[in-house]
Amino acid sequence: MEDITLSLETAYALALRVLQHNGFSEAHASAIARNVTDSERDGNPSHGLYRIPGCVHTLLRGKVSPDALPVIEDNAPAILRVDAHGAFSLLAWKAALPAFIDKTRQCGIAALAINHCVHFSALWADIEPLTEQGLVALACTPSHAWMAPSGGSLPLFGTNPIAFGWPRAGKPPFIFDMATSAAARGEIDLHRRAGKKVPEGWGLDPQGKPTTDPAQILAGAMLPFGGHKGSALAAMVELIAGPLIGDMTSKESLHYDNGAGGLPFGGELIIAMDPQRFLGEGAATHLARAETLFTDMQEQGARIPGERRHRVRAQSERRGVTIAKALYDEIIALGA
Amino acid sequence: MEDITLSLETAYALALRVLQHNGFSEAHASAIARNVTDSERDGNPSHGLYRIPGCVHTLLRGKVSPDALPVIEDNAPAILRVDAHGAFSLLAWKAALPAFIDKTRQCGIAALAINHCVHFSALWADIEPLTEQGLVALACTPSHAWMAPSGGSLPLFGTNPIAFGWPRAGKPPFIFDMATSAAARGEIDLHRRAGKKVPEGWGLDPQGKPTTDPAQILAGAMLPFGGHKGSALAAMVELIAGPLIGDMTSKESLHYDNGAGGLPFGGELIIAMDPQRFLGEGAATHLARAETLFTDMQEQGARIPGERRHRVRAQSERRGVTIAKALYDEIIALGA
Repeated sequence: MEDITLSLETAYALALRVLQHNGFSEAHASAIARNVTDSERDGNPSHGLYRIPGCVHTLLRGKVSPDALPVIEDNAPAILRVDAHGAFSLLAWKAALPAFIDKTRQCGIAALAINHCVHFSALWADIEPLTEQGLVALACTPSHAWMAPSGGSLPLFGTNPIAFGWPRAGKPPFIFDMATSAAARGEIDLHRRAGKKVPEGWGLDPQGKPTTDPAQILAGAMLPFGGHKGSALAAMVELIAGPLIGDMTSKESLHYDNGAGGLPFGGELIIAMDPQRFLGEGAATHLARAETLFTDMQEQGARIPGERRHRVRAQSERRGVTIAKALYDEIIALGA
Repeated sequence: MEDITLSLETAYALALRVLQHNGFSEAHASAIARNVTDSERDGNPSHGLYRIPGCVHTLLRGKVSPDALPVIEDNAPAILRVDAHGAFSLLAWKAALPAFIDKTRQCGIAALAINHCVHFSALWADIEPLTEQGLVALACTPSHAWMAPSGGSLPLFGTNPIAFGWPRAGKPPFIFDMATSAAARGEIDLHRRAGKKVPEGWGLDPQGKPTTDPAQILAGAMLPFGGHKGSALAAMVELIAGPLIGDMTSKESLHYDNGAGGLPFGGELIIAMDPQRFLGEGAATHLARAETLFTDMQEQGARIPGERRHRVRAQSERRGVTIAKALYDEIIALGA
């Protein structure tokens, strides 16, 4: 398979041009282009440039606003809401970020609800700007009803990712970003395309029976990671990034999609905490104790979540990113 | 094995009397007696009356304060701290609750740090009083370094439980309370006593090799539930209920214990959110959408976390609780 290597600047400029050419406003196009270029750079191609055609097709099918301006609403001393008005989540997040950081520093802990957004992006990218400000952060979002709850057999929960970040002075942050499903939906689909079975425990067929056939799982139900514990966490995400913020559950999102095969539509909840407000003068001492935990992890061969991302990032900054020529051609054909 | 049945009132009075007789102040004794009686009542004997001898022995070994008064500190608009000053967590929690509820209603979201407490109790009991006030809540605490991180082989993390609650009008709340370890430490010990192997995936021997021998796991390292995802959650608990609130990690707690075999010493973090402040006038409508999610779960045979607890509770309220006569005698022998 032929590949092509692009500098990060070229990749970003290409993404921006194609998105604007297809009708996204400059503000939305630059937020999306930044996000997909950053994901590609960090070795996360499933959220990288590969998403450009999907974003464009979502727009052409009328399933996302190309230009809605986010509207920020101050709900309570420690709650901020931003209404994406049917656009992708990224510009809403960017617009709300400064006020959200202020609220967190002021109150010690604060919540941001992003509402009425179309969602395709990885949550770590919403966490990192907070850790860069020295804040601790947690984010989650429902998706489409693709996963059965533990003890059930029908799709009800989304793959409902949870991301968490911890700031580290002078070092890349500790950040994990994980689906509460046993595997990503895309990974199941890749097995299907390759004609391979998936491991046991990934899903059920349409009759609710365990299966290793990826096509049967895609037609049936995915399963949560870690049995009833992962299922409980997925339910928590449905609740706190759904009804709690006045937005859709994964089932409602899939119903709203009405068979179009589009992206999840709904909300995202982010909670941020300021160690300085928790710890006052003791902050430096206590944050150093977290570093001891990380050292202990590394000394026994355990990975710090997010480490790999930053290693790949440093490499991409020197060498650019390499994508399949076929994907490059597909993006170019979208009219840049 | 001979059993004895006690009414809830008798069980509480017995616990209170034994705890006071051994030196706990009335305030601490009643908080502990309430907690263990409630756990016994709810079908959770491992946090029930069985804990009384442990509480007394912890006191007799000088490892917990019998009478320290909790000191509340207002850290920031949305952060409250309560210093247990070396006593059990329960009285500190009770003392801070009214101000914590106020802060949550005022700010929309708030955090409570319980510091310098000895911890033995189940987290659901700290969550339920918040759901009874119509609040959403999340709690977590480190324990002792008993569990290896994913990719490692040495004990570093605690069993680090996470509990979450969602209020339901006129119904028992949705509450889960789960260790981030594959199994509870007590369950591994029960297998050891019974001479049984444990399932694969529960732990490693002292050489870091997977084993199904419970004694080898207790001497080696437990494993997280759900592989690297459960491990990431356990690390999050270490961080946010350890250094973030100026308190110990599980490794520091075990080091502080210095081989005495005592209970974990450190902190607990609780985060509460007020749906009324998130949703305003729309609260009732959106909370009703959460009920649809629960109905969908139940219709396909999935359990609502906490359901069983309330079924058993109703039964215990009618019939009392039944415990082993040997345990009853052990409690009585403590001098009531």
